[in-house]
Amino acid sequence: MDWLRASAVQQGRAITAGLLDPLDQTEAYLTAIKAHPDGKRIYARLTEARARSEAIAAHDRVKAELRRGVLDGVAISWKDNIDSAGTVTEAGSRLLEGRVPRRDAETLAQATREGLVCLGKTHMTELAFSGLGLNPMTATPPNSRDPSRAPGGSSSGAAVSVALGLAAAAIGSDTGGSIRVPAAWNDIVGFKPTHGAVSSQGVVPLCRRFDVAGPLARSVEDCSEIMAVLTGRPAVDLKGCSAAGLRLMVLDGLPFEEAEEGPVSAFHDAVDRLARAGASITHGNPGIVRRAMDLSPLLFAPEAYGIWRAQIEDAPELMHKPILERFRGGAEVSAADYVGGWEKLARLRLEWAAKTAGYDAILLPTSAILPPDAARLNEDEEYFARANLLTLRNTRIGNLLGLPAVSLPTGHRGCGIMAMGHVGGDRHLLRVAAGMESALAAN
Amino acid sequence: MDWLRASAVQQGRAITAGLLDPLDQTEAYLTAIKAHPDGKRIYARLTEARARSEAIAAHDRVKAELRRGVLDGVAISWKDNIDSAGTVTEAGSRLLEGRVPRRDAETLAQATREGLVCLGKTHMTELAFSGLGLNPMTATPPNSRDPSRAPGGSSSGAAVSVALGLAAAAIGSDTGGSIRVPAAWNDIVGFKPTHGAVSSQGVVPLCRRFDVAGPLARSVEDCSEIMAVLTGRPAVDLKGCSAAGLRLMVLDGLPFEEAEEGPVSAFHDAVDRLARAGASITHGNPGIVRRAMDLSPLLFAPEAYGIWRAQIEDAPELMHKPILERFRGGAEVSAADYVGGWEKLARLRLEWAAKTAGYDAILLPTSAILPPDAARLNEDEEYFARANLLTLRNTRIGNLLGLPAVSLPTGHRGCGIMAMGHVGGDRHLLRVAAGMESALAAN
Repeated sequence: MDWLRASAVQQGRAITAGLLDPLDQTEAYLTAIKAHPDGKRIYARLTEARARSEAIAAHDRVKAELRRGVLDGVAISWKDNIDSAGTVTEAGSRLLEGRVPRRDAETLAQATREGLVCLGKTHMTELAFSGLGLNPMTATPPNSRDPSRAPGGSSSGAAVSVALGLAAAAIGSDTGGSIRVPAAWNDIVGFKPTHGAVSSQGVVPLCRRFDVAGPLARSVEDCSEIMAVLTGRPAVDLKGCSAAGLRLMVLDGLPFEEAEEGPVSAFHDAVDRLARAGASITHGNPGIVRRAMDLSPLLFAPEAYGIWRAQIEDAPELMHKPILERFRGGAEVSAADYVGGWEKLARLRLEWAAKTAGYDAILLPTSAILPPDAARLNEDEEYFARANLLTLRNTRIGNLLGLPAVSLPTGHRGCGIMAMGHVGGDRHLLRVAAGMESALAAN
Repeated sequence: MDWLRASAVQQGRAITAGLLDPLDQTEAYLTAIKAHPDGKRIYARLTEARARSEAIAAHDRVKAELRRGVLDGVAISWKDNIDSAGTVTEAGSRLLEGRVPRRDAETLAQATREGLVCLGKTHMTELAFSGLGLNPMTATPPNSRDPSRAPGGSSSGAAVSVALGLAAAAIGSDTGGSIRVPAAWNDIVGFKPTHGAVSSQGVVPLCRRFDVAGPLARSVEDCSEIMAVLTGRPAVDLKGCSAAGLRLMVLDGLPFEEAEEGPVSAFHDAVDRLARAGASITHGNPGIVRRAMDLSPLLFAPEAYGIWRAQIEDAPELMHKPILERFRGGAEVSAADYVGGWEKLARLRLEWAAKTAGYDAILLPTSAILPPDAARLNEDEEYFARANLLTLRNTRIGNLLGLPAVSLPTGHRGCGIMAMGHVGGDRHLLRVAAGMESALAAN
């Protein structure tokens, strides 16, 4: 068995069973990353010494029969906006060049306590403010299925590290779709928790009121076990999860506007398979979605610009121009509009909850477009801007409405199906996703 | 004994002992309020039917030996920005004229479950946006010690209802000092919890990131028991609390600038008595305070204006002009400045915590001035604006730094001593306050 491409849980079970040694596996990942021609475009830096010492400790716990959990000794990657003690953490931005945090982010510290091995830090979009995954200021990972295409972002290296078998799983972060888009474009699972469900202490901020860390992995089960580690709660029991009987609503309207045929037909095919597996599918198009989306310009860029203005305006030449423009787009918004926007959004969230309470999840295509050509994105600013907006549009609905959301592979390359759950209902959404996953795998 | 002027806990104990009947006591309060010549300037409206039915239920629980806690059957007042189901809740503003919430605010619902009797809703400053307690648009309660003076606000009726024996205790709310200022000016105790320690669901907002509800009462013990009810936790054990050994820091500098002699000499006299009782007193003047205060214009008015703009600009003629101007002062601030201000404040809070960790509490005069003449405040806008700023300046330090804070009577009429604790350290602050209270009573 190629253990590098096994799921995190499969690796963890093999460690428990004595079939796999954590230290061997960590060394195998480090070797594979260094041997990969694009390794340096995927990992911003390896934390080799740390990984080895963590793997040795995990190895010793196996021998002593003191494993801390199923993921003890499993090696994963961390997005470079998550602080790692003593290791440069730059969030994909030259504004933070050489920045070395003194402490691990709470999530990384928690995962380390549970025995997970930190392989290194993955490349990402500049300050996490784009969904395409391009970063001309540092490095752009290749799409795992077609290196000429964009990997998706902002957790670009995170997704590619998993898809190429260069990490058992990855931790990324999501502000407007940054976990789910690259997961969809690399045919893996990406889980965005409810905002606040995972600590964001020590995560370089983009928009504090939306930022949340979460897993990118090979299976829903991996996501569930990683969420257990990150939240310090028992893992959700996924036994017996099935699509049969799930009440699912397809979100019509906006998610399909200007969408490419590929993701749309992949989505409908996946929904058909869910229906055949016994899910009840209805369609809806609540006006709340568009009203929430209309608030976006008041909420995202103004907060991002408010957080970064001093550093950005001090050295704008260190930034990729389209990203710089996105930040500066927030400059003109007034505090009253920003606060008023949040007031309106809070009311829309309550309306949404009342309207959707009867469904297990709401379904839509993760991204409206397939991974675009990376070279053209780099050359054509207008193409970049349009693709970026369209890429993040569907995922952003979940961030605005405060919902947990997961992207699952449809079986059609680069096309994900997204399921949005209810605020705080992360555990139920994992069970729904497990049911969907098994239905999509079976037929 | 005049039970109307007894502390809430004394009344509760008398009920337990069979010396006082909850129904008699509620009727006595209702009668006293209606008989008082200023009753209608203190209570915006009574909730007589509700009070009686709650008092009857409490009476029945006494007979059945099923009392829910020491405050079961004790009758208190509620500030009129706290939603009461089926009863008009106007937050002192004609913009909300006739507004009837369908549900109790969470705090009121919780207090009702614990058996407290709701006597009615107290007058307050317009939308809680002034510290003087004047409200020409509805009613201004008289200062309990000198009716020609301002009562302090915005929880004006709350403080006066307690000080005049027209409620056993009161629930108010504090955004920049609205619990502590009227407590100081009416010689009672006012406790502002850490932001978020008490639910603000169903409290009419002013600045959501500062608003917090809390008690105004006759003693620290009353505050402690009310906090137990509002937070659903066991009451803090105040037995054996003493000033001896407390490490207290007097905050020099800003709190004393432009201050009147009365509050300053009352404060120093109180500090001397604490020292004689064995508290260790040091002095400090961290620059953090001024840096935090300088952020005020970016944080308070912009949020208040963002929340209320549509309603205000729809009918500005329904507002008292100085309050309208305060709101509109937030219009010019940009979202980036607002967000950036919060980023800076978060860093200052961490610095403050590191600098003050060695102290049990930080001391300063609650208000820099004595209650001003109410007639002059009504006539002279400039005098009003200056007095309002100076009134709230010292209390606002606690809101900015996110600290719980309590105002205790010094024994000098209208002069309070304020103790600020540590973020989340509300329970310790109550013990510190109990120690200070006993020292101030004893000598």
